[in-house]
Amino acid sequence: MSMANGTQPPSSPQPLSPQTARSLVDSVEAFLFDCDGVIWKGDTLIEGVPLALQALRSLGKKLVFVTNNSRKSRKQYAKKFASLGLDVSEEEIFSSSFAAAMFLKLRNFPKEKKVYVIGEEGILEELTLAGFSCLGGPEDGKKEIELKNNFWFEHDKSVGAVVVGFDQYINYYKLQYATLCIRENPGCLFIATNRDAVGHMGSQECPGAGCMVGAVAGSTGKEPTVVGKPSTFLMDFLLERFQIETSRMCMVGDQLDTDILFGQNAGCKTLLVLSGVTSLSDLQHPTNEIHPDYYASNVVDFVELSRNCPL
Amino acid sequence: MSMANGTQPPSSPQPLSPQTARSLVDSVEAFLFDCDGVIWKGDTLIEGVPLALQALRSLGKKLVFVTNNSRKSRKQYAKKFASLGLDVSEEEIFSSSFAAAMFLKLRNFPKEKKVYVIGEEGILEELTLAGFSCLGGPEDGKKEIELKNNFWFEHDKSVGAVVVGFDQYINYYKLQYATLCIRENPGCLFIATNRDAVGHMGSQECPGAGCMVGAVAGSTGKEPTVVGKPSTFLMDFLLERFQIETSRMCMVGDQLDTDILFGQNAGCKTLLVLSGVTSLSDLQHPTNEIHPDYYASNVVDFVELSRNCPL
Repeated sequence: MSMANGTQPPSSPQPLSPQTARSLVDSVEAFLFDCDGVIWKGDTLIEGVPLALQALRSLGKKLVFVTNNSRKSRKQYAKKFASLGLDVSEEEIFSSSFAAAMFLKLRNFPKEKKVYVIGEEGILEELTLAGFSCLGGPEDGKKEIELKNNFWFEHDKSVGAVVVGFDQYINYYKLQYATLCIRENPGCLFIATNRDAVGHMGSQECPGAGCMVGAVAGSTGKEPTVVGKPSTFLMDFLLERFQIETSRMCMVGDQLDTDILFGQNAGCKTLLVLSGVTSLSDLQHPTNEIHPDYYASNVVDFVELSRNCPL
Repeated sequence: MSMANGTQPPSSPQPLSPQTARSLVDSVEAFLFDCDGVIWKGDTLIEGVPLALQALRSLGKKLVFVTNNSRKSRKQYAKKFASLGLDVSEEEIFSSSFAAAMFLKLRNFPKEKKVYVIGEEGILEELTLAGFSCLGGPEDGKKEIELKNNFWFEHDKSVGAVVVGFDQYINYYKLQYATLCIRENPGCLFIATNRDAVGHMGSQECPGAGCMVGAVAGSTGKEPTVVGKPSTFLMDFLLERFQIETSRMCMVGDQLDTDILFGQNAGCKTLLVLSGVTSLSDLQHPTNEIHPDYYASNVVDFVELSRNCPL
C-alpha cells in the first residue's frame, strides 16, 4: 500500500504523511500498542519493530502494550517479548488477564470469596498474584458430567465471581459450573476478559473469547462486565497509573472494533496499522463505521515517516 | 396450590374453574403439549396423564406434543412415550430436531450440500431421515485441535447449513468447525433448534441449547434462525399439516418464555401448568411480562376440572 497517494475526502481516515506522523509523535506522550498484528504475528516479530520502539523510547515516549489475549499473564508476556528480542517490562504490559484481576482488586472483591475461571493459565496466574483463590481453568478441562436425573452437580457456594476468557478446552462441565455460580450464588459477578469473535491461528481465524462469553451469556441470560478492549476499564486504570491526559495518548492497533474503538471510547488519538487483520478495503468499506484518525501500513513505517520530517 | 382461591384482577391470568376449563375444551380442536414438566419430569410420568390424554382423545381432540429438546428424534420420543405407557404416534410429535430438518426441507436445501451439526443423536437422525448429509455431532465429541501457527484447520466447503442444538459434548473443535462454515462458506445458514437458557437434570438446572447457540453467535457475530419454540416456524408447519385455525388451538406448557410466548406469537389460547419450572410466584412476579390466558396446577387437574362441569 502506498502512503503517498492518499487522496481521501477530509472526513475519512488519512494515511500518514511525514508531517502528520511527526506531528502525531510530537503531540503524544504515551503510545498504547496492541500486540498481535502490530508487534508480532503469532510467534513472529514484525521486522523493524525493535528499532522503531527504541526510537520512540529515545524521544521520551511512554510505551504500553495492551492485549485482549488472556491466555498469558503479564510475566509470560514479558518472556515472550524478551524471546523476540524486545526489552519490555511487566509494568508496561496490560493484558486482559491482568485487567480481570485488577477489576476485582479495585472493587475490593472479598478475599474469602472464590473466583471460577473459564479460561487458560494467564487468568489463573494473574488472579493468584493479586491474592485471589481460583477454581476451574485448565484443571477442569478433562472433567465430564453425566446428564442423569439422579445426578447432583455440586458447585462451591463461596464463588463470588466468574471470569470468562478464551479457553481452548471449553466443555460442558465448565459451562455448567459457571452457569450455576452466576444463576445461584447471590451477587456473583460475571466478568469477561473480552468478547473478540475470533482470534488468529497463523492466517486462519478461530473462535475467540466472544465464543465462550456468548455461551455463558446464553445459559445465564446475563450480560458480562467486559474488562478488556473496547471497554474503558483498562483505560481508567492506565490513567490513574500514568497521570497522562487521554488526548495525549495514541492507541495503535490492527482491529477496528476493539483497538480503534477502545482508543476512541477513551478519547485517545488512534492509528490503525494494516499489518494485522484489517485491510485498506475493510477500512474503506461503506459498512465500516469505525474511522481511526490515521492509518499506516505498520508501526515501523509510522516511526520512519515521523523521522523523515525535517524539524 | 389451590385453584379455588384465585382472586386476581381481570387482566391477570385466571386459575381455571370448572366452567372455564370446560369452555376451553369446548372451544379448542387441538391441544399442543410441551413434554418435560407437563407430561413427564425427566424420566418419570406425571401421575394421571394417560387417563387425562385419553379423555381428550375421546372428545375428538387432536393432540400434538411439541418439545424444544433436540436430543432425541421423533422415533426416539415415540419410544419414550411408549415406555411410559402413553400411546402417542411419531406423527403427533414435533421436536426441535424434526423442526430443523423440516426447515431445511421446506427451503429446498440442496441435497448435494452438507449440514454441520453441533448437537446430539436426535438432530442427526432427523436430518438423515429427511435425506440430508450430515457432519459433526457425537463423532466430533472427542476431537481436539492444536492451536499452533502452522496448523491449518480444514473444513468442508460444501457445508451449506450449521444446525446448533443442545450438546453435552460441546468442544472447541466443533465450535471452530461451525464458525469457519458460517464465516467462510458463502450463504451458509445458521439454524438453532432453540435458545432455552437452561434445561433440567432432575431438580437442578443445567445449560440448555441457548448456551451452544450463544457460543456460535459470539464467534460469528451472526444471529441464528430459531426453529423451535418460541419461533412460529413450527406453528406454520403445524397449520399446514392440520388445517386448524390457531384460535382453535391451545398451547399447554410449563415455561413462560418458550411455551406461552410460542402460543401467543401464533395466536393460540394458552394454558400454563405449574407442574414444571414455573411457580405461581414466578407467574405473578411484577417483572414477568408474559401472561397466559389461564393456569392450572397440572394437565390432570385441567382435564378433571373440565369433566366436573355439568353440560
